[in-house]
Amino acid sequence: MNFDAMLDTAINSLHQEGRYRTFIDIARDRGHFPHARWSRPDGTEQPVTIWCGNDYLGMGQHPVVLAAMHEAVDAAGAGSGGTRNISGTTIWHKELEGELADLHGKEAALLFTSAYIANDATLSTLPKLFPGLIIYSDALNHASMIEGIRRNGGAKRIFRHNDLAHLRELLEADDPSAPKLIAFESVYSMDGDFGPLEEIVALAEEFGALTYLDEVHAVGMYGRRGGGLSEELGLAGRIDIINGTLGKAFGVMGGYISASGKMCDAIRSYAPGFIFTTSLPPAVAAGAAASVKHLKEDQALRDKHRTQAKILKTRLKGLGLPIIDHGSHIVPLIVGDPVHTKRLSDMLLADFGIYVQPINFPTVPRGTERLRFTPSPVHGPKETDALVKALDSLWSHCALNRIELAG
Amino acid sequence: MNFDAMLDTAINSLHQEGRYRTFIDIARDRGHFPHARWSRPDGTEQPVTIWCGNDYLGMGQHPVVLAAMHEAVDAAGAGSGGTRNISGTTIWHKELEGELADLHGKEAALLFTSAYIANDATLSTLPKLFPGLIIYSDALNHASMIEGIRRNGGAKRIFRHNDLAHLRELLEADDPSAPKLIAFESVYSMDGDFGPLEEIVALAEEFGALTYLDEVHAVGMYGRRGGGLSEELGLAGRIDIINGTLGKAFGVMGGYISASGKMCDAIRSYAPGFIFTTSLPPAVAAGAAASVKHLKEDQALRDKHRTQAKILKTRLKGLGLPIIDHGSHIVPLIVGDPVHTKRLSDMLLADFGIYVQPINFPTVPRGTERLRFTPSPVHGPKETDALVKALDSLWSHCALNRIELAG
Ligand SMILES: Cc1ncc(COP(=O)(O)O)c(C=O)c1O
Ligand SMILES: Cc1ncc(COP(=O)(O)O)c(C=O)c1O
Repeated sequence: MNFDAMLDTAINSLHQEGRYRTFIDIARDRGHFPHARWSRPDGTEQPVTIWCGNDYLGMGQHPVVLAAMHEAVDAAGAGSGGTRNISGTTIWHKELEGELADLHGKEAALLFTSAYIANDATLSTLPKLFPGLIIYSDALNHASMIEGIRRNGGAKRIFRHNDLAHLRELLEADDPSAPKLIAFESVYSMDGDFGPLEEIVALAEEFGALTYLDEVHAVGMYGRRGGGLSEELGLAGRIDIINGTLGKAFGVMGGYISASGKMCDAIRSYAPGFIFTTSLPPAVAAGAAASVKHLKEDQALRDKHRTQAKILKTRLKGLGLPIIDHGSHIVPLIVGDPVHTKRLSDMLLADFGIYVQPINFPTVPRGTERLRFTPSPVHGPKETDALVKALDSLWSHCALNRIELAG
Repeated sequence: MNFDAMLDTAINSLHQEGRYRTFIDIARDRGHFPHARWSRPDGTEQPVTIWCGNDYLGMGQHPVVLAAMHEAVDAAGAGSGGTRNISGTTIWHKELEGELADLHGKEAALLFTSAYIANDATLSTLPKLFPGLIIYSDALNHASMIEGIRRNGGAKRIFRHNDLAHLRELLEADDPSAPKLIAFESVYSMDGDFGPLEEIVALAEEFGALTYLDEVHAVGMYGRRGGGLSEELGLAGRIDIINGTLGKAFGVMGGYISASGKMCDAIRSYAPGFIFTTSLPPAVAAGAAASVKHLKEDQALRDKHRTQAKILKTRLKGLGLPIIDHGSHIVPLIVGDPVHTKRLSDMLLADFGIYVQPINFPTVPRGTERLRFTPSPVHGPKETDALVKALDSLWSHCALNRIELAG
């Protein structure tokens, strides 16, 4: 059996399609985000500005977060030392779960090591709790939701992205007495568009379905206390399970669901992905709790974030660059070819010290390869100006289309 | 649809079987492991000694680990800010992967957010790389391996725990030209027994099968540099993929595989559980790297660990308590009933300040419910003495069988 040759085949097909991923080694400079050092493969270093991170608000360098982490390391050490059930539930985990339940105005919250595993573990466990459950899943849902929904071979229906008529059609086609759940996102991170929360919730109520909302790209940033789009729209109370991450706007790591006490208790008790793994380090839980707490108050930071995003979008549009603008904080610039996208990214990095990773299939559909910019409160006028000028000059240099490329 | 009633049913069945899990909120005291504070549900606190943690060597409070974490927080902030591909690969991740590849004498290593997801993601991705792959899995493999093997509905064969004849039978029954992989563990953590590494490797070579070894409960502790049982037995070079955790003996959090450069590259490129999730915080990677590096040298700590385990086992055996002893560092004490096990655990905690979580189904088979002790270098004579006396008195008080209870 020539396993090596099979690995070659698998890897070569990525090279041929121009979507082999090369990781960029960086070290962010605490206190100077979004500035960082890039360690080149040859060992030399170059200063870079990160334009593709998901630490959307720069909370990863916020003093309250870092102080909480230092304190917890000093108090309790490095790791938790166990799974949640076996010595790995600490006062920091409990406190964080309390902050998160409060954030979403729900009875409870349940921490996971990531939002990936929160999605995967929860969505694969719900069919055990609700036998015969049919899951209606938006076609552009994140990989972690897809993996969870597919895991146990339960019944699923895929509705076209944000297509309410299609969703209704699918709901109507199924047995009215079957338990149902609609799984969707509030901000789809690759296009930066919003899910139609209000309409989906209304449909769910009409058909007696549960709702499962991934707020990963909205928590911390939307809503008066950072409770996400469901808070901003006043819908949190009508959504059964909210999923969020502690690794993006909250700047640390980890994921969770927030729901009724019973729901969290059942998932806690039945989900292997929750049960059989070491819990988050106390310092990570402490840092995340400090961040969640802080962002319940800091509306100014959210406002600044939106302002920076608006400025960047306005300037890129002014130059005719084909960005997608759905009104969110994410700024995708469509290139439409994996090789060109990679080339642009390489030139931005090497020639301009601007780091933005190319986004290829399977993260986005083929033909829509893109550069995805994430402006933040720490991207000031200087950084924005440098980015806009670099893009303008590269667009001319490479004779790329303006405007009409946008989908 | 009465979802609430279905949740009640699911939760009540756990109560009825006596295996509803109650988490104990604790805070370990850095510098004073295994001592900790237990926060009772009523808010009061009690000092406790932890006897069930998986920070097997106490590395979670080691100064080199904590210094590395503090430094990385100061240098780079809280989280990584991205997935590995999108701005979340830092110099700390690269350094840690280098340490791990070196630890196992392999070309490469690939970090995941936990060993759970490393198992799940790798084992579910291998059938994509090797079409038609048949996975032979030990019946007592960890939940994370089971989940990974089952995920995509690929071909699998379960062999009876450590049963080489059964494994051979299964291998012989399949098409000799089908790609095959044998998945097993080096230390099975609930009984503390070892996998027959040498024999399985020989079988794999005979049948041209790949080997996948979970060393989660062995890395750091076995082998002259902490490379696990495969190092101790001089077999690492003959095992294709080694899986390990950074959350147990290394005292922090995270997981990995170590394998050939091509294998790691292919998993890196194709495994959703690797690709679509925020990478570990720099501080976690830095702490883990410091721990791995330190344990390559500190044989004295490994020796002390074995000594403590031996003393505890000898003393418990001397009192006729029904422990299982397969020669590893784990000390399971069989009770055989979920309600009794919980009661003993509650009494140890409340009356003696000794914290050991009851282990019930599905973590162990019904009828083998147990208390599972994990002596470590930080459990000195005073702690061991207190535990032995408490168990002796409870065993008499509850009129539990001695000796003959052991399976
Ligand atoms: C055998 C085995 N493999 C894998 C894991 C998962 O490791 P981690 O805690 O890093 O997710 C565990 C326990 O947690 C385990 O016991
Ligand atoms: C929509 C969505 N859900 C879930 C996740 C997973 O979150 P985490 O990074 O916490 O695993 C991501 C990205 O990482 C995401 O984009």
